[in-house]
Amino acid sequence: MDNLEIIGLIAAALTTSAFVPQVYKAWKLRSTKDISLTMYLVFLTGIILWLFYGIQIGSLSMTIANSVTAVLSLIIIMLKIKYK
Amino acid sequence: MDNLEIIGLIAAALTTSAFVPQVYKAWKLRSTKDISLTMYLVFLTGIILWLFYGIQIGSLSMTIANSVTAVLSLIIIMLKIKYK
Repeated sequence: MDNLEIIGLIAAALTTSAFVPQVYKAWKLRSTKDISLTMYLVFLTGIILWLFYGIQIGSLSMTIANSVTAVLSLIIIMLKIKYK
Repeated sequence: MDNLEIIGLIAAALTTSAFVPQVYKAWKLRSTKDISLTMYLVFLTGIILWLFYGIQIGSLSMTIANSVTAVLSLIIIMLKIKYK
């Protein structure tokens, strides 16, 4: 695996795991007033398309990264709806 | 351009523009308490790596999408620091 692919994997890991602290904060504080529901609905739609794209081109890293990001975004949407 | 590339462009447009409603909400409400600073710092780091990756592979769509996302994430970080 060349260096550029390693950078791609690190980038995917960062942009995916980034949502964990937001899930934790929303869950711990039980407060999501400042979080934009529109953002996460639009973002989730885009992530689902990226997931479809990744599956079609047979990219395991895109498939894994976007699956995890989709789940985390869905959790944030549910916390947002629950704690408005 | 085949259908899959069109899906990729739509996905990129969605996952990029998704941040605009969050920027608008944070700016309008002047309140960012529920937004995770850690998320956006980690996310921005990942986006910068994706931007570098996109430039290296000569992908105009990745370069544009990640440049815009980086700027939007940076604005959210500044609003977060300003309105804590």
